[in-house]
Amino acid sequence: MKVAFVIFDGLTALDFVGFHDPITRLKTMGYMPDLEWRVCARAESVRDGAGLAIRADEVAGPLGGYDLIFIPGGFGTRTLKDDPGFIDWIRTAAACKWKVSVCTGSLILGAAGFLEGKSATTHPAAHDLLAAYTEGAVRERIVEDGEVITGGGVATSIDLGLYLVEKFSGAEARAAMQKQMDYPYQGPSPLHS
Amino acid sequence: MKVAFVIFDGLTALDFVGFHDPITRLKTMGYMPDLEWRVCARAESVRDGAGLAIRADEVAGPLGGYDLIFIPGGFGTRTLKDDPGFIDWIRTAAACKWKVSVCTGSLILGAAGFLEGKSATTHPAAHDLLAAYTEGAVRERIVEDGEVITGGGVATSIDLGLYLVEKFSGAEARAAMQKQMDYPYQGPSPLHS
Repeated sequence: MKVAFVIFDGLTALDFVGFHDPITRLKTMGYMPDLEWRVCARAESVRDGAGLAIRADEVAGPLGGYDLIFIPGGFGTRTLKDDPGFIDWIRTAAACKWKVSVCTGSLILGAAGFLEGKSATTHPAAHDLLAAYTEGAVRERIVEDGEVITGGGVATSIDLGLYLVEKFSGAEARAAMQKQMDYPYQGPSPLHS
Repeated sequence: MKVAFVIFDGLTALDFVGFHDPITRLKTMGYMPDLEWRVCARAESVRDGAGLAIRADEVAGPLGGYDLIFIPGGFGTRTLKDDPGFIDWIRTAAACKWKVSVCTGSLILGAAGFLEGKSATTHPAAHDLLAAYTEGAVRERIVEDGEVITGGGVATSIDLGLYLVEKFSGAEARAAMQKQMDYPYQGPSPLHS
């Protein structure tokens, strides 16, 4: 499996890192030895909403060769959802099997047309914005609709990452990972649509 | 208050970002308008244990001018705790009022001599290493001993950050922040020594 972690100016770093940590542990802890990932952006480096600078591995490359695309949220999504250049780049991920977001990352999935007819969630304060892209906007922390999986605000990233760990590698992998992460919380049950 | 977030090759990004998020919200959500922070390293950019590249704001500058120094953990600490150049740099933080770590960041505080006579914690798998630096090594998720505050593994970073938010700005600030972070978990009560 190849994962594209998308980052952009004005992301919230915890949306990204809270998901990146458990997903990359699938490889580093030996559950998915063939897992590959790239941090993808349209610039060599981006800054999160608090100024934290994170570097990309791939700059402006097409996203269609990945199996899973992950889009975090952050205030940057408020303008990027209406930025044709950015959204055209996200649309290169159309062929990716799994489309996953945390927080207002779902607005980007929506703007790219990936939420049509899908149930999805977003940050609790952004549901009105999400409703522009799908009639299936729901207030849940994790929503799974086929291969589109969306999470609620910011720190939901960890629960969503662990949910995918369990989905891909089973409950024992999740339990071992939570122990290694010193994360004692069970997380929400996903809403399935 | 001025905060130094220390980063280094082989850190675990979630140790850092899970703390950076709530602490920087003290400013961005208006609770501590005068809060300042810098991301400090000995190189312009570092990579976490999964290869994620994070850029520093300050490179190899002295740390004594900050009110709070924060040190995350990660496998990099296993060698850095015995790296005289790195530890000498950390010792420039001796005058910082608050010394805070997550995970094996406490091994670095210990190697710098900041844990002498102090109770402290670390990642659950690293307690034998911590015992080299203090007789007060305890298995807790948050330990507060005066102005030395240490957290357990990786994701304890969020609970520790929120604990300091409550300590510095009160329970209402913490509750508002948890709502904004979509983080429903209450976290552990700290052990006070």
